[in-house]
Amino acid sequence: MRDLKFAVIGGGFMGKAHSIALASYPMYVWPTPLYPVRELIVEINDELAAESQKRFGYNRASTDWRAAVEDPEIDVVDILVPNVLHYDVVMAAVAAGKHVICEKPLALTSAKAREMADAADAAGVVNQVGFNWRLAPAVQLAKKLIDEGAIGEVRHVKAFWLGEFFNDPSTPLVWRFKKEQAGSGALGDLGSHAIDFARFLAGEITEVQGVQQQFVAKRQLLDGSGEGDVDVDDATSFLVNFASGASGYIECSWSAAGHKTGAGFEVIGSTGSLSFDWEHLSELRFYDGSDAADRQGFRTIYTGPPHPSGDWFWPIAGYQIGYADTKVIQLADFVHAVAGETERPQTTFREGLKSTLVEEAVMESAESREWTAVPAE
Amino acid sequence: MRDLKFAVIGGGFMGKAHSIALASYPMYVWPTPLYPVRELIVEINDELAAESQKRFGYNRASTDWRAAVEDPEIDVVDILVPNVLHYDVVMAAVAAGKHVICEKPLALTSAKAREMADAADAAGVVNQVGFNWRLAPAVQLAKKLIDEGAIGEVRHVKAFWLGEFFNDPSTPLVWRFKKEQAGSGALGDLGSHAIDFARFLAGEITEVQGVQQQFVAKRQLLDGSGEGDVDVDDATSFLVNFASGASGYIECSWSAAGHKTGAGFEVIGSTGSLSFDWEHLSELRFYDGSDAADRQGFRTIYTGPPHPSGDWFWPIAGYQIGYADTKVIQLADFVHAVAGETERPQTTFREGLKSTLVEEAVMESAESREWTAVPAE
Amino acid sequence: MRDLKFAVIGGGFMGKAHSIALASYPMYVWPTPLYPVRELIVEINDELAAESQKRFGYNRASTDWRAAVEDPEIDVVDILVPNVLHYDVVMAAVAAGKHVICEKPLALTSAKAREMADAADAAGVVNQVGFNWRLAPAVQLAKKLIDEGAIGEVRHVKAFWLGEFFNDPSTPLVWRFKKEQAGSGALGDLGSHAIDFARFLAGEITEVQGVQQQFVAKRQLLDGSGEGDVDVDDATSFLVNFASGASGYIECSWSAAGHKTGAGFEVIGSTGSLSFDWEHLSELRFYDGSDAADRQGFRTIYTGPPHPSGDWFWPIAGYQIGYADTKVIQLADFVHAVAGETERPQTTFREGLKSTLVEEAVMESAESREWTAVPAE
Amino acid sequence: MRDLKFAVIGGGFMGKAHSIALASYPMYVWPTPLYPVRELIVEINDELAAESQKRFGYNRASTDWRAAVEDPEIDVVDILVPNVLHYDVVMAAVAAGKHVICEKPLALTSAKAREMADAADAAGVVNQVGFNWRLAPAVQLAKKLIDEGAIGEVRHVKAFWLGEFFNDPSTPLVWRFKKEQAGSGALGDLGSHAIDFARFLAGEITEVQGVQQQFVAKRQLLDGSGEGDVDVDDATSFLVNFASGASGYIECSWSAAGHKTGAGFEVIGSTGSLSFDWEHLSELRFYDGSDAADRQGFRTIYTGPPHPSGDWFWPIAGYQIGYADTKVIQLADFVHAVAGETERPQTTFREGLKSTLVEEAVMESAESREWTAVPAE
Repeated sequence: MRDLKFAVIGGGFMGKAHSIALASYPMYVWPTPLYPVRELIVEINDELAAESQKRFGYNRASTDWRAAVEDPEIDVVDILVPNVLHYDVVMAAVAAGKHVICEKPLALTSAKAREMADAADAAGVVNQVGFNWRLAPAVQLAKKLIDEGAIGEVRHVKAFWLGEFFNDPSTPLVWRFKKEQAGSGALGDLGSHAIDFARFLAGEITEVQGVQQQFVAKRQLLDGSGEGDVDVDDATSFLVNFASGASGYIECSWSAAGHKTGAGFEVIGSTGSLSFDWEHLSELRFYDGSDAADRQGFRTIYTGPPHPSGDWFWPIAGYQIGYADTKVIQLADFVHAVAGETERPQTTFREGLKSTLVEEAVMESAESREWTAVPAE
Repeated sequence: MRDLKFAVIGGGFMGKAHSIALASYPMYVWPTPLYPVRELIVEINDELAAESQKRFGYNRASTDWRAAVEDPEIDVVDILVPNVLHYDVVMAAVAAGKHVICEKPLALTSAKAREMADAADAAGVVNQVGFNWRLAPAVQLAKKLIDEGAIGEVRHVKAFWLGEFFNDPSTPLVWRFKKEQAGSGALGDLGSHAIDFARFLAGEITEVQGVQQQFVAKRQLLDGSGEGDVDVDDATSFLVNFASGASGYIECSWSAAGHKTGAGFEVIGSTGSLSFDWEHLSELRFYDGSDAADRQGFRTIYTGPPHPSGDWFWPIAGYQIGYADTKVIQLADFVHAVAGETERPQTTFREGLKSTLVEEAVMESAESREWTAVPAE
Repeated sequence: MRDLKFAVIGGGFMGKAHSIALASYPMYVWPTPLYPVRELIVEINDELAAESQKRFGYNRASTDWRAAVEDPEIDVVDILVPNVLHYDVVMAAVAAGKHVICEKPLALTSAKAREMADAADAAGVVNQVGFNWRLAPAVQLAKKLIDEGAIGEVRHVKAFWLGEFFNDPSTPLVWRFKKEQAGSGALGDLGSHAIDFARFLAGEITEVQGVQQQFVAKRQLLDGSGEGDVDVDDATSFLVNFASGASGYIECSWSAAGHKTGAGFEVIGSTGSLSFDWEHLSELRFYDGSDAADRQGFRTIYTGPPHPSGDWFWPIAGYQIGYADTKVIQLADFVHAVAGETERPQTTFREGLKSTLVEEAVMESAESREWTAVPAE
Repeated sequence: MRDLKFAVIGGGFMGKAHSIALASYPMYVWPTPLYPVRELIVEINDELAAESQKRFGYNRASTDWRAAVEDPEIDVVDILVPNVLHYDVVMAAVAAGKHVICEKPLALTSAKAREMADAADAAGVVNQVGFNWRLAPAVQLAKKLIDEGAIGEVRHVKAFWLGEFFNDPSTPLVWRFKKEQAGSGALGDLGSHAIDFARFLAGEITEVQGVQQQFVAKRQLLDGSGEGDVDVDDATSFLVNFASGASGYIECSWSAAGHKTGAGFEVIGSTGSLSFDWEHLSELRFYDGSDAADRQGFRTIYTGPPHPSGDWFWPIAGYQIGYADTKVIQLADFVHAVAGETERPQTTFREGLKSTLVEEAVMESAESREWTAVPAE
C-alpha cells in the first residue's frame, strides 16, 4: 500500500474538515489502495502555518503555496483557499502534474472553470471539486434507486439549500457579499450544491428562469469606516428544465429564518418519489408505488451498512455519520480514482464547471427576465 | 334566531360535504345568528333527488334548478354543479336576489368570473367561493401570526397541492381532462387552492412565469369507443412575484407519486417562518426568531381552543377536525356575513376571480415562455 | 330502510359529538340498513333541553330520562350522563328492552360494569361502550395488519394517553378529581382508552404492576369556600403482561406538559412494527421487515379509501377525518349490529368491563406494590 | 501544550471509534490543554497489531497488554477489550498509576465495578466509562434546560434503546448471548445507556420493577457443532422510581423490528417537556409551557454553536455530527479532567457502577417479581 502525500493549501473551516477526513479515512475505508498522508499544510503566515501543522497533524508546514504545489514529494494538492484564488493554485498544481482537489465553487466564472477543467483533463491528473453533499449515503441511495427504476421516470425535482446564517443585518461586509470576490452570493455558495443535487439525480439542466433577492443592501465595512454595498444575492430561486423533459425548481438563501442547514431535494417520479434533507443526513424518504394499496406510504430509510458507502462507517443503520464523514466519502472517491480503481471521481472539475454554467444562466435570466439556455459545457 | 334556508344545487362529493356542514354547523357554532336549514336539494333526476333528500336530510328535493333558485322560500343558493355550469346557476341565483355560495373554480374564464362577481356585488348579495382550505384554523393562525408581525416581513412563499389521484394512466377521460369543460387541469383543480393560500398569506401576485406538464396524453373514452386526447395539464409549477416585493413558487399536480392530499405552504419571513400541510391539518409549524439563541426551532402548534375558530370544535388541541369541519368554518364565515356581523365572507367571488386571473396568466406564460402580468382585477 | 330512533340522555361535549355523528352518519355511511333519527334529547332542565333540541336537531326534548328510556317509540338509548349515573340509566334502558350505547367508563366499579354487561346480554339488546378511539381507520388498519401477520408475533405493546388539560393547579375541584364520582383520575378517563388500544391489538392483559402520581393535592372548591382534597391520580403508568406472552407498558396523564391529545400506541412484532398517535389521526406508521434490506423503513400510511371504514369518508387518502367522524364509525358499528349484519359491535359493554378490571388491578397494584392479576371477566 | 500518550487496548469497532476520536480531537477541540497522542495499540496477535497500527495511525503496536499498561511512556490506558476482561486490565492500569478510560459496561457485576471505581479513586487517577451517548450536545442541552428550570420539576422519564440487530434467529451464539461473558443481554448492552440517560437527567433511581423477555432460546454454536442455549435477555422493560419522586420507564431490546439506533428519552416536567432520539442526533425537542397560549408547541432545536460542545464542531446548526464526534466529546471531557480544568469527567467509573447496580436490581426484580431497591452505591 503506497502512501499518497497531500499538500493542503489553506486552513480554516475547510482545512479542519479535510484534515479530519484525511486522518480518519483509513480508519473507515479499510483496506485502501493508497494511504493518504498529511504531508504539508500551507497557511498565510508562519504562526498560522505552525499552529495548523500541530492542530491538524501535518508533517510539514509552509507559507509558500507555489513551492508546495511543485514539491516533488507531493502527490495531491488540495485547494481550500478563498474562491478568488482557486484558479491560480489549481492551474499551477495541474501544471506541476499533481492530482488536484478544489473546494467549490471551482472558479468565479465558467470561463475560468472551463480552463481549469480542460487543463486538468489535458494533464491527465485526477481532479475533484468539493461537492461532498451529493456523496452522502442517503443521496447516493436516492441516485441508486432512480437508476434501478424504483421511482419510474423522473418528472419533477426540487432542490434547495436554505440557511439563515447571514440573516442578521449586523453581519459585516465580508468577501462573500462582494461579487468580485465571490462571483455571486447565496447562489454560488449554497445554490451550487442544490444544482449539483439536481443534476446528479436528474441529469443536465438545459434552461433556467430565475429571481434574485437582496434583503440587506448595505453592511458595515470590516475596517469600521462606514457602510459598503452588498452586490450579490441573499436569495435566489429559479425554474429549471432538464434535458430529460423533467421540470424543476431550485432555491437557495442564507437569510431564510428558521432554516439552519436546509439542504436537500424532493424528486417526483412516475411510480415513486424520494426526499432528503441534510438536517436528517442519515435518512432517505422513499415512496414505492408498487407497494400494496393499503400499505403505501413514504418510508423513512435510515442509512447504514446496506447502503452506498455504508459499510465504511458503523455496523448499525442510524448510528449517525456527520459532516466530516461525507468528506471521507469524497476522499475515498478521489483516492480510488487515483488508484485507478475507478475511471474518475464522481465530482470532477467538469461537474464544477457545469454548476457554474447553470449559475451564470440563472443570473442572466434574473437580469433579462427570460428563459436562458445553459450551455452544454 | 331566524332560519336561513338553503337550496343546494348538486349532490355528489361536494353535496355530501356541504350537507354535513349544514347539519353540524349549529352543533359546533353556537349560538349562531341564523340557523341554516337544509330546505331543498336539486339533482339531475328524480331518483337521485329522492335519494339525496333522504341521505342528506333535506325537506324537499327537485330536479329543476331554475325553479329552485327562484323559489321565494329560499335564502341561499349553494352551487355544487360541474364547473362548466357554475356561471348559469350563479347568474340566475343572483338575479333572483339570493345569497350565493359557489364551489371553486368560480368560472372557466376570468371574464365569466368577473361578470359573476360584478353581478353579485351589484345585487348586494352575499357571495362566497369554496376556498375552505384557507379557512382551516392552522392556516388562519398563520395569517394571524403574519399580521401580528410574528415573522417580520414576508420574503418568500411556497404553496402547493400535490396529489396522485390521476396518476394511473388507466383512469378514463373524465371531464376534468378536457379544457372545454374544466378550464384547466391540475392548475384549476388544485393549483387554485395553492394560489389562494399564497394570496391570502402574502397579498396580490403581480406576475408569473410557469411550466406545464402532461404525463398522459391519451385516455380511454368513457363510452369505451377508444382513446381521446387529454388537453389539460397534469402538473404545473410557476414562479410568482408579489406586489409586496416577495417572491414565490407555486406547484400543483394530480400525478405526484406518493403525495395524497399534499396541500400547503411554507412562508419565510425576515424574522420567522411558517409551514403547513393539509396532511397535518391541525398543525402549524412556526419559527420565532426572537426565541433565545439556544432554544430556537420550529414549533409544532396543534390547533385547538386558543386558535381561530378553535373553540367551535373540541376542548383540547389536537383532538382533530376533519375536512367537513373546514366546510363548517366556510359556512360560518358565510352565515355571519349574511347576518351582517361581518362585512363579507373572506372568500368572496372576487377572490375566486383573482385566482382565475393568476391561473390564466400562468397558462399564458407557459405558452409564451415570458413573465406574464396578472391583471389587477 | 327503517328508522332507528334515538333518545340521547345528556348534552354537553358528548351530546355534541354524538349528535354530529347521528346527523352526518347517513351522509357518510350510505346505503345504510337503518336510518338513525334524532328523536329525543334529555337534559337536566327545560331551558337546556330546549336549547339542545334546537342546536342538535332533535324532534323532541325532555327532562325526564326515565320516561325517555321507556318511551315505546325509542329504539336506542344513548347515555352521555356523568359517569356516576351510567348504571341507573343503563339498567333502566336495558330493562325496557332498548338497545344501548353508553359513554365510557361504563361504570365506576367492575362489579357494576359486570352487572350492566350481564343485564344487557341477558336482555339480548345490542350494547356498546364509547371506545371510539380504537375505531379510527388507522387503528383498525393496525389490527388488520396484525391479524394478517404483517408484523409477525406481537412482542411488546406501549399504549398511552397523555394530555395536559388539568396541569394548571388553578383548575378547580371538579368531579373528575373525586374518586367517589369519577372512580379514578387520569387512569379511568384516559388510561381506559390506552388499555382498550392494548387489548384490541394484543389480546387480554393478565397482570399489571403500576405507579400512580398526584401532582396537585388540593384544588379550589367550586363554591369558592376554600380548598378540597384531590383523591385521584393525575398520572398512572404500569407494566402489563398479556395472555399471549407479550409484555407491555401503558401510561396516562392529564398533566403531561406539551402533550395535547397524545393518545396512541407502539406495537413491536417479531417481523414488523406499528405506531399511531391521535395527533396524527389519519396516519399509521408501519415497518415491514420483509422489505428489501436497502429499502426498509417505517412507512407513513395516510388512511383513505383502501383502509377500514375509509370509503365512507373522502375519496383521497389524507383528506382528513376528525374526532366526530370516529363517532360516526362507532355509530356504524352499532347500527350494523342492530340491523343484524354483524353479531355485535366491536366495543360491547363487556369490553368496557374488561378495561375496568384492568384499571382496578392497576390501582390495587399501586397500593400493594405487587403484580396483580386481572380477573378473566 | 504537553502530549498525552495513549495506549489503546483492543481494536475492532471501538478501536476504530476511539482512534478516530483521538485523531480528530485537536482538530475540533482547539486550543487544548493537552495533546492526545496515539502512542501504542495492543491487539491479540502480531498481524492484527500491525494492521491496527497502520490503519489507526499509532506510533507503536504490541500484543502484550500488561507491558502496555506498565509502559512508563504511557499516560492513559484506554480499554476496549471484551467486557469479561475489563476488570483485569483496569486494575492493572490503575495499579500502574495510569489514567484510565474503559468502555461500558465497566464490569460484569457491581461488586467488580465497585472494586474498580474504588481502586481508581484511591489511586487518584482520572477514570472514565464510555457513556458517550449522554454527552451528545442535544442530551447535554436537555440537562442544561432541566437545570435552568426550563421544564419545571421532572415528573416522568422514559428512556430507551431499541434496535433490531439481533432479531435474526440465524445470528450465531456469540459471547453477547452468554451471561457468563456478557453479564446480561440487551439490558447491559443497550439498557445501560438508557439507564445513564435517565440518571443523568433525573437523578438517582431508588427502585425498579421489571420484565425480561427472550425471543430466541437457542442459537447455532460458532463452531458449527450444533445449537447452544441463550441465557440472557433479548428485551427488558422496567418501571423506575427516582429519589426525587419522579416515576419512569426504561426499555431496551436488540430484537425490536424496525428500530435501528432507537436510543433516547422523553422527559415530562411540570412546566415543559423534552424528547430526544439518537436517530436524530442533532435535534432536541423542547416544549416550553411559558410560551403564549396560541404559540405553544414542541420546538425542534437543531444543535450547533449555541449549544454544549457545539462550537467545537461546525459553524452552522444542523450541519451534523456523527457517532465518532460524540467520542470526541467524551475524550474532551477526559482530557480536561486530566489537565485539571475540571474536577472529574462526567462519566466516571462510579457512574458505570451505578448503572450496573440498576441493572442488577432489574434482573433481581424480574426474578422475584417484586419492586427491588437499588443500593445507593
